[in-house]
Amino acid sequence: MALDRITRLDPKLKAFITVMEESARAQARQADEELAQGLDRSPLHGIPVAVKDVFSTQGVRTTCGSKVFADFVPKGDAAVVEKLKAAGAILIGKTNMHELAYGITSTNPHFGAVRNPWDLERIPGGSSGGSGSAVAADLVFIAMGSDTGGSIRIPASFCGTVGLKPTFGRVSRYGVMPLDFSLDHMGPLTRSVRDAALTLRVLAGFDPRDDTSSRHPVADYPLGENISIRDLRIGLPENFYFDRVEPATAQAVRRIAETAVTLGARIIPIRVPDISAINTIGRIILLSEASALMERHLAHRENFGTDVLALLDQGRLLPATDYVNAQRLRRLAQQEFQVLWRQVDCLLTPTTPTAAPKIGQTTVDTGDGAEDVRIASTRLVRAINVLGLPALSMPCGFNGAGLPLGLQIIGPAFGESVILRVGAALEDATDHGAQKPGNL
Amino acid sequence: MALDRITRLDPKLKAFITVMEESARAQARQADEELAQGLDRSPLHGIPVAVKDVFSTQGVRTTCGSKVFADFVPKGDAAVVEKLKAAGAILIGKTNMHELAYGITSTNPHFGAVRNPWDLERIPGGSSGGSGSAVAADLVFIAMGSDTGGSIRIPASFCGTVGLKPTFGRVSRYGVMPLDFSLDHMGPLTRSVRDAALTLRVLAGFDPRDDTSSRHPVADYPLGENISIRDLRIGLPENFYFDRVEPATAQAVRRIAETAVTLGARIIPIRVPDISAINTIGRIILLSEASALMERHLAHRENFGTDVLALLDQGRLLPATDYVNAQRLRRLAQQEFQVLWRQVDCLLTPTTPTAAPKIGQTTVDTGDGAEDVRIASTRLVRAINVLGLPALSMPCGFNGAGLPLGLQIIGPAFGESVILRVGAALEDATDHGAQKPGNL
Repeated sequence: MALDRITRLDPKLKAFITVMEESARAQARQADEELAQGLDRSPLHGIPVAVKDVFSTQGVRTTCGSKVFADFVPKGDAAVVEKLKAAGAILIGKTNMHELAYGITSTNPHFGAVRNPWDLERIPGGSSGGSGSAVAADLVFIAMGSDTGGSIRIPASFCGTVGLKPTFGRVSRYGVMPLDFSLDHMGPLTRSVRDAALTLRVLAGFDPRDDTSSRHPVADYPLGENISIRDLRIGLPENFYFDRVEPATAQAVRRIAETAVTLGARIIPIRVPDISAINTIGRIILLSEASALMERHLAHRENFGTDVLALLDQGRLLPATDYVNAQRLRRLAQQEFQVLWRQVDCLLTPTTPTAAPKIGQTTVDTGDGAEDVRIASTRLVRAINVLGLPALSMPCGFNGAGLPLGLQIIGPAFGESVILRVGAALEDATDHGAQKPGNL
Repeated sequence: MALDRITRLDPKLKAFITVMEESARAQARQADEELAQGLDRSPLHGIPVAVKDVFSTQGVRTTCGSKVFADFVPKGDAAVVEKLKAAGAILIGKTNMHELAYGITSTNPHFGAVRNPWDLERIPGGSSGGSGSAVAADLVFIAMGSDTGGSIRIPASFCGTVGLKPTFGRVSRYGVMPLDFSLDHMGPLTRSVRDAALTLRVLAGFDPRDDTSSRHPVADYPLGENISIRDLRIGLPENFYFDRVEPATAQAVRRIAETAVTLGARIIPIRVPDISAINTIGRIILLSEASALMERHLAHRENFGTDVLALLDQGRLLPATDYVNAQRLRRLAQQEFQVLWRQVDCLLTPTTPTAAPKIGQTTVDTGDGAEDVRIASTRLVRAINVLGLPALSMPCGFNGAGLPLGLQIIGPAFGESVILRVGAALEDATDHGAQKPGNL
């Protein structure tokens, strides 16, 4: 079972900070009994899952990948953990992550570097790197991540899994260590788009304990066998999203667009708003809010890794007027995207400009000179957090080195059904998600 | 008519920046014709009104009391102006105000000092000082104000008029020069509580052009003859609101509380949350947002008065983390007040700790040493803008010098009906609002 595989592989992968062996065995026994008695809680009943170590787990330490919270044992479960347990899922453990979901490098200074199952010398991406690695290595079926500037979609892309960031307000943030007040999103990393849809069905819904939770009606996400995307308008960006992207990635995404056409969808070339400006808005909001949240812990600077410390210091130097302007420009950007959704039903883009970089690698070169790894990795995903829109990352092929590549499907607010339908139809028409790392 | 009285008195009062004489006469003729033909648009039909010079008026300059906008002629009307016109009110002119609704002194550096009709050597309070002065001097029946940190209620208190700041989102901000994104409220200054209720009925309602406009159902505000406040729970604060308040004011408010008891209401002594801390939150948010809004005009520093310039410079020095923390603490304060509304239906407090100071006076002494006039004037009103709650100021007597004193009734969100009912019942039981300045 999952625990044996974790025992065997996790010393190499370092995907987990805490494995809940005893509790997992007890939960598995209970699930077996319930299922034997005919009690079927949900499609996740008896399924081994993991959650990133930002999700509070009653009686189980929740470190947030940080020395500050290394000994923090929550009194209750996060809403997401409550819902997974109620659905009968078996919580195997807490996954490794970037320090505070904020570190620049995947090398967590306190809990070690998570490894990418496709190449142990490469990063899994972050900040939900342990979740990406654990799902890609078949340690669990589903692992929850959090995404403030791409932290679900980047590891999904680098590890060859599916990753879903729902609309802001769709999945409760209650009981999750916040990095930010308005950019944090909770969502699953899974092996298939259908698994992501099943998981979202379990997680979605209003929660009065999260003051940004939405009362928007929940759709019935799970997907049948024959999914039609006929006449659906898929926007393929003419600007920004294919600039400074490695040829293998750009080609893989364009090939998928051709597949969509064979399925009857319409590919619509479209100019998108200034994504680079929206990324900057996101950086200003995140730097300000993360620093405000962590301010009281900064008396003990020795508790932080150097890269997180640099970001926290940077945030404290930003003027309030820049933050206010960022929030104002954010509202304008959201209005611009409202107009875009009149022309297309979703957008198809690469998730990351490259496949997974090596551990310790600080820059990538996508043909236009060296670019910081973190800047490059977040370039195509961060703006979507600023906009609060749903986005799905899924495998779309491999590069010459056999590393997985990811595409991103972005939808209008509360349009999870659309992006999941498109993703499942494309998954059915290809086999990119079916391949597994062969080196473990 | 109103225009003759303005011609005679406004040279002394300086309550108007622009008198729309020709247009007012045309509107009056039209109203007479309509009423003669039996077309009755509303209780405001044919009634002379004015609006503070922050409300856009089509084809009529809208200066915001500032040199920056001295020649700005809007292409359309503010939502409030549209609604007043549709109700048949006759718009007589645009009232004088603090520079940008932000100046510290009532002495507008560009349009002169507005005078208080009760004593021409005294300020009318601000920033809607022209509106307070115009209503108190019987130049118009109703004058619109805007209130970001007390700017409707302070002039109401100093000028002996009624002033209503509705709940945030209740009256559209569309077409009003913003001073701030989340503290600005629009409301009327009137001669009586019933006039305020009639005006709110005309103004209240959802407006898609204002992205903070509320869809909360609009109540039927106008009030009948015999208003009962029997068994209503009126909270009388035990802390903060009667500290450092001039004895005459404190006594006047307490006497009104006794009147409420004779009407059958219950006076409930109550401890309120830390209002001083909420005032500080309001200052941080206003300094940050006002500076962000005005940043692009700061290249021409000569266009600003010295006190506004000082505030704008101060706002640019605030760190983003302080602003983020202020918004976080604001949400907590709003939650604390939710608890308070389980115990009482409204709060009864003084509006200002003193009657109107003299023009040029920089400090007041309420028994605890000198306090800056602006700090003192806003001390009892600013927090309510941070909370977004409705509040009514109304006359409650006179001090030894014959200057009017004001009380404030604060209600829960969208509880305008409650505070208007209490105000009207108290007005019926006293005659403080019926007296008029005798020196004009």
